[in-house]
Amino acid sequence: MANDTMFVDLVLRNWKQSTDRVEKFFGDQSEEDLHRESAPGRNRLIYIWGHLTAVNDALLPLLGFGPRLHPELDDMFIKNPDRAKEPISPGAEVKRCWAEINESLWTHFQALTPAQWLEKHNSVSTEDFAREPHRNRCNVVLNRLGHTAEHLGQALLVEPRK
Amino acid sequence: MANDTMFVDLVLRNWKQSTDRVEKFFGDQSEEDLHRESAPGRNRLIYIWGHLTAVNDALLPLLGFGPRLHPELDDMFIKNPDRAKEPISPGAEVKRCWAEINESLWTHFQALTPAQWLEKHNSVSTEDFAREPHRNRCNVVLNRLGHTAEHLGQALLVEPRK
Repeated sequence: MANDTMFVDLVLRNWKQSTDRVEKFFGDQSEEDLHRESAPGRNRLIYIWGHLTAVNDALLPLLGFGPRLHPELDDMFIKNPDRAKEPISPGAEVKRCWAEINESLWTHFQALTPAQWLEKHNSVSTEDFAREPHRNRCNVVLNRLGHTAEHLGQALLVEPRK
Repeated sequence: MANDTMFVDLVLRNWKQSTDRVEKFFGDQSEEDLHRESAPGRNRLIYIWGHLTAVNDALLPLLGFGPRLHPELDDMFIKNPDRAKEPISPGAEVKRCWAEINESLWTHFQALTPAQWLEKHNSVSTEDFAREPHRNRCNVVLNRLGHTAEHLGQALLVEPRK
């Protein structure tokens, strides 16, 4: 395997590992459990899951893979904090969106060549990208891995089920 | 810049960004503030910072950079949970260790070629590495980025200062 292919393989492995952990943690919660807070007064699990789902959905246009699948998630899970929009979406719905979005991302991810991973993403101009070539697809994904890990870490603080 | 060099550059940028965030967040806390809990009954900030420091220190031998600088951190911050060992180290001491360890790591990181990033780390045998070539230095660093982000996310939940 060429070096650049190997680096892409590592990023994909880390993405898969992260996605699987999120899916297992939130997917294992009952509808009631998802309404528990990560810490007193902080985001509920369902909000964190919806937030991660919306952020991943936004990767589709950002990385040039096509239009968003669930832009309707933003109002509840990105533009507004938890509890601003009630009732919050049921876990079953977030779960369905999460699966659909991540299946699409994964298919697109696997189809990219190393050179395509290093192409610019869609929120940077051609001029800026010429000066800052690190603003590419791969960097976005590395950033999102950190974002997901921060929120998963918070969700893991949830009080044990009663 | 060759593709493989660019991938390494992205990993280094993400590492630097992560390390800077940790340093700023914890470094800005007073000794008293560091004794606040991330969530009620959960790890105190000082414990999380010490834990991240010890885990980074362990990267030195794991990645073949030399012996650990502060193996004494493990007893308090890895082998035992928060509050098992009292009094906990002062923030000033953790801060000094953190700076020293991360300066060493950063120097070593910058000296590695892309091919060296893809060499095996020191916890995998030559035989296993032949079968699983992703168990290399770069993968360890990507994993640690996720680990750091999880704990930073938790620390960020801390109650506001009184």
